[in-house]
Amino acid sequence: MTIISLLTDFGLQDVYVAEMKAIILQICPEANIIDISHMIEKFNVRMGAFLLACAVPYFSKRTIHVGVVDPGVGTKRRAIIVETKRSWFVGPDNGLLILAAEREGIKHVYEIRNRRYIRPQISHTFHGRDIFAPAAAHLARGIAASEFGPEITDYIIPEYAKAKLEGTTVSGEVLYIDGFGNLITNISTKELERIEVNEGDMINVKVGKKKMRLKWCSAYGQVSKGEALAILGSHGFLEFSVNLGSAAKLFKAKTGNNVKVSRLDIE
Amino acid sequence: MTIISLLTDFGLQDVYVAEMKAIILQICPEANIIDISHMIEKFNVRMGAFLLACAVPYFSKRTIHVGVVDPGVGTKRRAIIVETKRSWFVGPDNGLLILAAEREGIKHVYEIRNRRYIRPQISHTFHGRDIFAPAAAHLARGIAASEFGPEITDYIIPEYAKAKLEGTTVSGEVLYIDGFGNLITNISTKELERIEVNEGDMINVKVGKKKMRLKWCSAYGQVSKGEALAILGSHGFLEFSVNLGSAAKLFKAKTGNNVKVSRLDIE
Amino acid sequence: MTIISLLTDFGLQDVYVAEMKAIILQICPEANIIDISHMIEKFNVRMGAFLLACAVPYFSKRTIHVGVVDPGVGTKRRAIIVETKRSWFVGPDNGLLILAAEREGIKHVYEIRNRRYIRPQISHTFHGRDIFAPAAAHLARGIAASEFGPEITDYIIPEYAKAKLEGTTVSGEVLYIDGFGNLITNISTKELERIEVNEGDMINVKVGKKKMRLKWCSAYGQVSKGEALAILGSHGFLEFSVNLGSAAKLFKAKTGNNVKVSRLDIE
Repeated sequence: MTIISLLTDFGLQDVYVAEMKAIILQICPEANIIDISHMIEKFNVRMGAFLLACAVPYFSKRTIHVGVVDPGVGTKRRAIIVETKRSWFVGPDNGLLILAAEREGIKHVYEIRNRRYIRPQISHTFHGRDIFAPAAAHLARGIAASEFGPEITDYIIPEYAKAKLEGTTVSGEVLYIDGFGNLITNISTKELERIEVNEGDMINVKVGKKKMRLKWCSAYGQVSKGEALAILGSHGFLEFSVNLGSAAKLFKAKTGNNVKVSRLDIE
Repeated sequence: MTIISLLTDFGLQDVYVAEMKAIILQICPEANIIDISHMIEKFNVRMGAFLLACAVPYFSKRTIHVGVVDPGVGTKRRAIIVETKRSWFVGPDNGLLILAAEREGIKHVYEIRNRRYIRPQISHTFHGRDIFAPAAAHLARGIAASEFGPEITDYIIPEYAKAKLEGTTVSGEVLYIDGFGNLITNISTKELERIEVNEGDMINVKVGKKKMRLKWCSAYGQVSKGEALAILGSHGFLEFSVNLGSAAKLFKAKTGNNVKVSRLDIE
Repeated sequence: MTIISLLTDFGLQDVYVAEMKAIILQICPEANIIDISHMIEKFNVRMGAFLLACAVPYFSKRTIHVGVVDPGVGTKRRAIIVETKRSWFVGPDNGLLILAAEREGIKHVYEIRNRRYIRPQISHTFHGRDIFAPAAAHLARGIAASEFGPEITDYIIPEYAKAKLEGTTVSGEVLYIDGFGNLITNISTKELERIEVNEGDMINVKVGKKKMRLKWCSAYGQVSKGEALAILGSHGFLEFSVNLGSAAKLFKAKTGNNVKVSRLDIE
């Protein structure tokens, strides 16, 4: 039973997601459709790309991931299938799929052009239903990705700031704030080891304009209720959290805020 | 694998939807349950009927659609099964199912009365779980719709305003505002052709009290970011949108607002 | 096809739920995963326990219920499997699972320790993905609960206030407020019969500081639009509701508010 995952910015009130699922099941009734998230911020391709890259490694090999955060729908932006060493990605050529796909190793990228695998009438506003859902379902039926159209190499690659060393400080940014108010940074243990910061240490932290001294804990419960901490999150990045509370509120933080971490004082 | 779709106003926090799914799977373990939406505005039968009618055409033949927006639960309003040329609809007799069913061609409407296909204890507040879910599951198992109770012909037909011509103007209303803030009207190309308005034209638009001159585009990206446009939506109705923004905010529009469209000035 | 149900406080924007589903399907591709709710208030174990107990009776025998409301993740709180006469429960040992499990009759409780059935790398912040999801999937594959670790008897039992008689008054509390604004109390017909209050009666009600005289109806529609009523809810508890409106707004009620019911005046 092939798994088809869906990630969109369609929200949960409208029926757009249901229409995609209905089309998939018309073409491939035995597909097992799993929602990743439909609450990506409208048009926020970077957020969609980040969350897709977080979730994808936990899925089975040969899963087909459909991503639709698509501000350019109806314009000349291309529709693509990305074939990696583990899975397939279907969606717009705007960078949404590439962060997740690169981590698996991209083998080929094809433009979806073959009208045989597209709905006969294509709405200018809803390629999720008319192009991406049918393409995913036909892939699930066993059609080779190369059947959908020509291979392309000039697909759009999104740019993500990498954390960097500045003397005794690691400098990065807030990639995402989750529903618990945890601040997920782009800083990994690799950079932290270089400035000799390890789990268990007290560290100086600056998020936006707010500075704090935090313990790098291994569980939320290692500080009192309402206290802030640093912790290695479930996706391998440093996170700032509040035990039974919200770090986003405490730091008044937003996605994109600068983050600095050091053993020493940060100006 | 029979598909059973669900559309309700139960929201996503409560466990009412889960109870319906659990009951369906007890009776018909191989049913494939697909959510259409559970975020219909509470008690808003018109909104539920509209969204059901939007989504249903994309589902496979022989799908069983369950709709529960049911302000009259526990009163004398009847429980019905509508059999159409393509599918079945299960829910309250309050108009919710009929808009979608009429588009497929209604063959028979039955009142659900046969206690064999109803849960032994019927809550006065939750027929979704005790009547509609079991009925849908028994239909999925192959029980004929006529087995559930007597055929009726006096089922409730909802009234929907149709767009109408007034000289050189088409007059309609805002049927629905989606999560992107797109204003979906009840005006189709048929009426627009009559006043010689075609895709690509500049048109005068009035929504509520606000007038604008908009281009009828074929993609959001044909106007600059933040600019308004008209576009044929994915369900075949004229919509007003803002590229990467919200037309609902720009027009301060609400569902039910009057809409006028013309090539000429609108008073 | 074994059903695995999920109840969490993870919300619907983040990808945590999707990661759990992905892991389950890697281990047991034929599992049928049903969401109970992911919108439990963050860290609110009592609310999670109550809603799980509401939903569970409607599921098929041999369902595997996974609950993750887990403020103690990463600390010494244990991971458990509860085996009852009807089903299995997987989650943290913090009381979340026990209310539902007790109603089915608990047979054994096992601590999850066997590393064979846990993901090799366990995040300190996300046992839902790394411990509970794999355990549920292995149970679904037919591994006996006793294989996961030692039986324990000192698991945490949550305390729930029981409604009590005070002369001619039943005293209880608001257990939960649903999305319709219905106030669900912990008062059942058993207590009401003792004070000679029956369906159809006018009753005096006090919720928090607000007193009202309400009819105990059998359907919302028995009072006018906007009027309050009492009704036996779909889970067998007395509820206060407003026909086509919200009792939570009318009473300005919160979960945990005191509730008194009597035929006579309540001071």
